[in-house]
Amino acid sequence: MNQGMVCCTLKEISERIGGFVSRDPDLRISGISEPRRAKPGDLVYVDQVKKMKEAEDSLGSALLVPIFEGECAKPFISVKNPKLAFAKLLQFFYPSLSPDPEIHPTAVIDSGAVVSEKSYIGAHVFIGKNAVIEDHVVLSPFTYVGEEVQIGENSFIHPHVSLLKRVKIGRNCIIHPGAVIGGEGFGYVPDEKGDPFHIPQIGTVVLEDEVEIGSNTTIDRAALGETRIGKRTKIDNLVQIAHNCQIGENCLIAAMVGISGSVKIGKGTVIGGQAGFRDHLNIGENCVIAGGAEVWGDLKPNSFVSGAPARDHKEHLKIQASLRELPEMVKDLRDLKKRRGSPPPL
Amino acid sequence: MNQGMVCCTLKEISERIGGFVSRDPDLRISGISEPRRAKPGDLVYVDQVKKMKEAEDSLGSALLVPIFEGECAKPFISVKNPKLAFAKLLQFFYPSLSPDPEIHPTAVIDSGAVVSEKSYIGAHVFIGKNAVIEDHVVLSPFTYVGEEVQIGENSFIHPHVSLLKRVKIGRNCIIHPGAVIGGEGFGYVPDEKGDPFHIPQIGTVVLEDEVEIGSNTTIDRAALGETRIGKRTKIDNLVQIAHNCQIGENCLIAAMVGISGSVKIGKGTVIGGQAGFRDHLNIGENCVIAGGAEVWGDLKPNSFVSGAPARDHKEHLKIQASLRELPEMVKDLRDLKKRRGSPPPL
Amino acid sequence: MNQGMVCCTLKEISERIGGFVSRDPDLRISGISEPRRAKPGDLVYVDQVKKMKEAEDSLGSALLVPIFEGECAKPFISVKNPKLAFAKLLQFFYPSLSPDPEIHPTAVIDSGAVVSEKSYIGAHVFIGKNAVIEDHVVLSPFTYVGEEVQIGENSFIHPHVSLLKRVKIGRNCIIHPGAVIGGEGFGYVPDEKGDPFHIPQIGTVVLEDEVEIGSNTTIDRAALGETRIGKRTKIDNLVQIAHNCQIGENCLIAAMVGISGSVKIGKGTVIGGQAGFRDHLNIGENCVIAGGAEVWGDLKPNSFVSGAPARDHKEHLKIQASLRELPEMVKDLRDLKKRRGSPPPL
Repeated sequence: MNQGMVCCTLKEISERIGGFVSRDPDLRISGISEPRRAKPGDLVYVDQVKKMKEAEDSLGSALLVPIFEGECAKPFISVKNPKLAFAKLLQFFYPSLSPDPEIHPTAVIDSGAVVSEKSYIGAHVFIGKNAVIEDHVVLSPFTYVGEEVQIGENSFIHPHVSLLKRVKIGRNCIIHPGAVIGGEGFGYVPDEKGDPFHIPQIGTVVLEDEVEIGSNTTIDRAALGETRIGKRTKIDNLVQIAHNCQIGENCLIAAMVGISGSVKIGKGTVIGGQAGFRDHLNIGENCVIAGGAEVWGDLKPNSFVSGAPARDHKEHLKIQASLRELPEMVKDLRDLKKRRGSPPPL
Repeated sequence: MNQGMVCCTLKEISERIGGFVSRDPDLRISGISEPRRAKPGDLVYVDQVKKMKEAEDSLGSALLVPIFEGECAKPFISVKNPKLAFAKLLQFFYPSLSPDPEIHPTAVIDSGAVVSEKSYIGAHVFIGKNAVIEDHVVLSPFTYVGEEVQIGENSFIHPHVSLLKRVKIGRNCIIHPGAVIGGEGFGYVPDEKGDPFHIPQIGTVVLEDEVEIGSNTTIDRAALGETRIGKRTKIDNLVQIAHNCQIGENCLIAAMVGISGSVKIGKGTVIGGQAGFRDHLNIGENCVIAGGAEVWGDLKPNSFVSGAPARDHKEHLKIQASLRELPEMVKDLRDLKKRRGSPPPL
Repeated sequence: MNQGMVCCTLKEISERIGGFVSRDPDLRISGISEPRRAKPGDLVYVDQVKKMKEAEDSLGSALLVPIFEGECAKPFISVKNPKLAFAKLLQFFYPSLSPDPEIHPTAVIDSGAVVSEKSYIGAHVFIGKNAVIEDHVVLSPFTYVGEEVQIGENSFIHPHVSLLKRVKIGRNCIIHPGAVIGGEGFGYVPDEKGDPFHIPQIGTVVLEDEVEIGSNTTIDRAALGETRIGKRTKIDNLVQIAHNCQIGENCLIAAMVGISGSVKIGKGTVIGGQAGFRDHLNIGENCVIAGGAEVWGDLKPNSFVSGAPARDHKEHLKIQASLRELPEMVKDLRDLKKRRGSPPPL
């Protein structure tokens, strides 16, 4: 996994993440790891002080730890937020390298498309009419780029992604394998005979900058206008986002979430795996929707809901706790009614 | 979005959708839109009379409205079913144009396959032995057509679709990107040692005419015989339909629904998102299954169920309303028992 | 469906599956089927004695039946486990034939990759740097093989599969169309401004031997180290397995199951469709998790749970039964309180 060839001193690393070096500032570090995988030369990441012992006993050369008081058998860097420092050092030691600019001879590119020479167009790619590929984009093998699609600088498209007609991808986006952006949504109206009549979906999808879309996730084009995913929003695998949804900035949407048509979600909202949303809902900013929740109504900002149907999380917990007593309650209540001479339950 | 170049009079449009023109029958209309996107030349769609004001204030030239009594600041066409009329006019003004017939030089086509010269075979397509592609079919780039697959007239296959061995696609079908039709189902039997032994799945999948399959949906081949999707049935994204299912005509199946093996679903049934079905169920005609419902038993025709496990919808609503009172009931019941001198609950 | 050209006697078949032949040991059999599809020459499979009549009336020539006492109008083979015998005979009569070794001229193979001459590399395949493809592997059209990927002997990769950087596929694995193995997981930590900061995922995925992965299923690479799927484990369509999961041997995971990061699942565990798991759980060996269950806590070996949140299955059934009475209980309890002169409920 030693992809990069980076090597630097404890002091240099510490400056990079704003930490405190306990000793040996000139010790050379060649990687970052966790205790049970550490090898000599590694800085060993410890998220909690109580786990420091395991890291001290590891093969690593130094520790990355939270701020603490006490002794340590190895030199260390202490920081306020070791998880963030760890993430930054992973990026530093194991940078994800983009391939050098190239247009592979098997790529099929429409003569009307505009493709930056600074981008990488892999094997078996297809780029349609009037598409625009900006600088430093990576189109992995088997990328499908439909007509008039735009892809912003530095965006990375993994294999087997489908970007349909007129979709706009911002800068620094990442789209994981098999995702489908801009497929035609599910819109029907009963015709005179009651058969489903298709409502053409002539809008598109816009991903703002720094958006990430998980593997095999599907995001449908709007009927009219745009389905929009806000800046820095991160969407996991196998998520469904239906036509005309408006997802705010900085949202985190875990795997297998299903969002029906025309739902608006405020910025900073976090959604747990397999949650579902009825159509046309308004979900406020900074909400937390627990995994598996089924949201059937609007939510005010800062709501925390769970359950199916979704309720206030504390209420949900109380109901769930009460349910454990329910079978006993049925008996108790029958008993009480009998003693009172009430007619027995049916 | 002005894809077509269509332009015609209010009167001509009205005749197309069977409406009533209020005035200015010769007014020229070049598109159809909704109030906040309307531009001069547009017919503006209004689904409810109470929303007419916004449309009257828009930039559009005329309105498409329900039948009403009263005044209107702009000329209008009134119809009984404005949503259906809107869908029809979207198809008219923004027709989805199929590409002209072509066989792209990068397509790999087995010499034993039969491909109509009137069809479009895109870049990087694969067509296997003895496959039959009828007239006016579109195979988008990266379509995989396995051995002996048949695709009927006018069907449109989007990118990255996999159609496996012997699958039959009817006429006028649409298959969205990444769908997998005819994958081998999940069938195992414990062997002598208790290890899973694979049951070969030698059947196939049949889509009847006018079926639509959503992005990244998976439909497994039958063990023996056929998995069958009835005429005009529409299936949304990320749906799973297991081996040997028989789905009737005119069904609507929303995103992320999971249907286990050998389920039969009657015609006209509507299934909400993320609903799930146990195997070997019989679901009657014209049922409504709410989003998120888990169906564990057969359903009679015209059933309306919701919840997990799915119950009659009205019963489900009553239970859900009662649940809100459950934590209080636990206390009340304890209180009553105490006063009666019952032994305290454990 | 007569893919093979196999034909043999009742006696030869019986020896293959360890059964008892009633009569006519030299009768020639050319296929295996079920009653309503049987044709002359077929051995007709019957899983239960009570269904024998239908098979006797079918067009088939002989029956495959459980051990029974009584008469039968046709010759039969009786065995202890007819379902397993049926599966074995399906494999025998309709073997899934791999294509002959070939490297299709449209395949793009990095010069640093090592590809066995005994393998089949289909049209439009991509194989990256330092990948290793062992003997008798099938890479169907549109397979993406990333850098340093290893694929063991006899593994069969269906169309449109993505195998990302450094993924290891064992021997005799089957990966169905559109599956994504080794996509980068969903890992973020809030940065100084509260924005999501990506945690690089530098680990990989290992599939042990005889693993099967369903269509459009996604399995994410580990943050560090490996996401691992144990030997003979079978995973259905549209399943999500997040980074760092450790799935034991011989598990069966049905469609649309979602497993969050760092979950460990013991060997022999069976998981029903659409079930979900919180992150960092420990699930014991030989558990059964019912379809739709939401698992929020660790499970001991041999647990059987259902419901959302998942509870012991028997407890869940009791609660569900009691829920039917809940609306009536609300009324009864109000009534009792009123009679006691308690203050009325709010």
